[in-house]
Amino acid sequence: MTDVTLWTNARIMTADGSIGRTPAPGALEVETAGGRITALGLALPRCGQRVVDCEGRLLTPALLDCHTHLVHGGDRSAEFEMRLDGASYEEIARAGGGIASTMRATRALDVEGLVAAALPRLDHLLAEGVSTVEIKSGYGLSVEAELDMLRAARRLAERRPVRVRTTWLAAHALPPEYAGDREGYLREVAMAGLERAAAEELVDAVDAFCEGIAFAPEEIAPLFDLARRLGLPVKLHAEQLSHSGGTALAARFGALSADHLEHATEEDAARLAAARSVAVLLPGAFYLLRETKAPPVAAFRAAGVPMALATDCNPGTSPLTSLLLAMNMGATLFRMTVAECFLGVTSHAARALGLSGLTGQIAPGLSADLALWDVESPALLVNRIGFNPLHARIFQGEIAP
Amino acid sequence: MTDVTLWTNARIMTADGSIGRTPAPGALEVETAGGRITALGLALPRCGQRVVDCEGRLLTPALLDCHTHLVHGGDRSAEFEMRLDGASYEEIARAGGGIASTMRATRALDVEGLVAAALPRLDHLLAEGVSTVEIKSGYGLSVEAELDMLRAARRLAERRPVRVRTTWLAAHALPPEYAGDREGYLREVAMAGLERAAAEELVDAVDAFCEGIAFAPEEIAPLFDLARRLGLPVKLHAEQLSHSGGTALAARFGALSADHLEHATEEDAARLAAARSVAVLLPGAFYLLRETKAPPVAAFRAAGVPMALATDCNPGTSPLTSLLLAMNMGATLFRMTVAECFLGVTSHAARALGLSGLTGQIAPGLSADLALWDVESPALLVNRIGFNPLHARIFQGEIAP
Ligand SMILES: [Zn+2]
Ligand SMILES: [Zn+2]
Repeated sequence: MTDVTLWTNARIMTADGSIGRTPAPGALEVETAGGRITALGLALPRCGQRVVDCEGRLLTPALLDCHTHLVHGGDRSAEFEMRLDGASYEEIARAGGGIASTMRATRALDVEGLVAAALPRLDHLLAEGVSTVEIKSGYGLSVEAELDMLRAARRLAERRPVRVRTTWLAAHALPPEYAGDREGYLREVAMAGLERAAAEELVDAVDAFCEGIAFAPEEIAPLFDLARRLGLPVKLHAEQLSHSGGTALAARFGALSADHLEHATEEDAARLAAARSVAVLLPGAFYLLRETKAPPVAAFRAAGVPMALATDCNPGTSPLTSLLLAMNMGATLFRMTVAECFLGVTSHAARALGLSGLTGQIAPGLSADLALWDVESPALLVNRIGFNPLHARIFQGEIAP
Repeated sequence: MTDVTLWTNARIMTADGSIGRTPAPGALEVETAGGRITALGLALPRCGQRVVDCEGRLLTPALLDCHTHLVHGGDRSAEFEMRLDGASYEEIARAGGGIASTMRATRALDVEGLVAAALPRLDHLLAEGVSTVEIKSGYGLSVEAELDMLRAARRLAERRPVRVRTTWLAAHALPPEYAGDREGYLREVAMAGLERAAAEELVDAVDAFCEGIAFAPEEIAPLFDLARRLGLPVKLHAEQLSHSGGTALAARFGALSADHLEHATEEDAARLAAARSVAVLLPGAFYLLRETKAPPVAAFRAAGVPMALATDCNPGTSPLTSLLLAMNMGATLFRMTVAECFLGVTSHAARALGLSGLTGQIAPGLSADLALWDVESPALLVNRIGFNPLHARIFQGEIAP
């Protein structure tokens, strides 16, 4: 017989697709060994169960931040000041700033240095009830420096009670040593490095930056072919600053997600729906870059494309470490509903990481990754700005410190 | 001989008007009894001084949130969902929602209930280095309920190490029992209540909401006349949703500040400059209401009008409890420089509260209200979004718990 904990008197939002405004208190049974949810909706504790009284608080799945660049060196506050003086993101990139400046700061750190730099950012996410974080490479831009970023990401999961999913994003920018040799970079770093990363079991998915200032769909396709041969799912930074055809590429490869999507079209929405890919929306970058063209939320909604929200935490265009604020921005800037924002950081975010069977909902069989909040309804998680009502975070059945 | 503490090895930003990017480490001497700054820039401790090593951290004045509606009952997340469905702020107000719904929730609480509701919001502000908070009445809309709001505000200063400045804002909205009798409300509640508040020493300044949906300048002028007779400074919610002439009224009465100002003109900037009033900008409401007309920052800059930034923390249009985020929004949405954002929550915010001689800068004679940050430059306080690098908050010379 397995020991169980009964979480009683909780207003449970399961994130199974339908959400009510103020759910009625219920109970949740969690296996102690293994930390899985065993039953839902039970009213009375049975003999021998440990009982935790949730005192009417809102109990949701723990949140997932499904798109971050959390591991990196340095900051870009000087460029932030440049932008305040009127320079564009593209101008900064062409001036040797942007990703290249973070590349230098990232290469200057060893794995332990990268871990130390990322920990305060990770702790901010966890303090808001996040229990799964996707972390991309993409600032090393050499095989070893990219591998070090993923090693740091894996090590973060040893330092904190959190699930980390790693993504290979070497096709993020062209480093100066490959100037004029895009093909060489993609072959010798992006692809050769991916084979190394896969052999060392450092990588869970493959991503690229499909954009005029980065890589074209036809340059990315061979990388995605390799990912397929390695059995790795793909995702793509697509249609952020212009319509570059990334969504079509992502859909063709059955991507877990296409991300950003400000310039996606209704056709793109249909493509994502057909491919069963998630649209990951990143309002932090939209906000900081003062974009005016929002992603086509109504088209995604009409086409039945699941939408997720993430911080895109990165030092340049989205130095954001609050997933609750990303939810508010999803509502305020993109006019997503409360339910869409909530599903966007729970079940749809899990789907964008290929983790639907493991976490992101409250259902028997899933990991007991939970968040307990000092509010009665999910609308308050979305409505408030810069406020954290987290009461407790539960990871794999245990209350996280 | 007075005991003193020497704060050494701190990168000190005095907020005296000029700010550098990465100040050189210096030292600060603070009297233990009285908590005043006694000297600045000293290199070596003298015999008998307590020494605190700041380890190269940034030391700034504690922040001031100079415009809040922190004390109130209830929340407005249901209206937030209405706005997501397309209703305007004015439509919600006319439908009996808006301020009226917060009025009902506020009247339902006694002073202790108002304190309990406000404490988590106050604690979020303090956790980001705020040591002075302005708190307005304006949701009671009867003499007793307005007085209770100010009593709750005063009580908050007994519960936490914080300086609270109270503002009488009965001329915020017309309660239903005075429908059709604006003059009666202003006479019997806004003005008669102000005399009570002044007699009970509950009020430090007088404010009103000058707007088409609220009160006109000629309705507010008698209230400001009364404030003058009572020796109380005034401030005004002006030109937020339309140009209603509030700035001219504020300037005529030598207001400490005019607040919001999205629709202010160059002439208004000249008026504020002549009156030596502060322009208090409130990007949280601008953001949540998805306004497109930003306040005329360039005109204020050109006219030499000091600008402050505040949360406007209120349940309807700015449920924001992060002054750091208000700084980022000031830069991102209003294109204020890093220096303007920093002065906007320190010395200019102090001026907007009439506290320049007491706090908001690091200078001998001022209260040792300080914030110690895990960053090297003020640009990082502005650049990051949803991240709190506070290391310690010092109020009147003592490290706050
Ligand atoms: Zn990204
Ligand atoms: Zn206000």
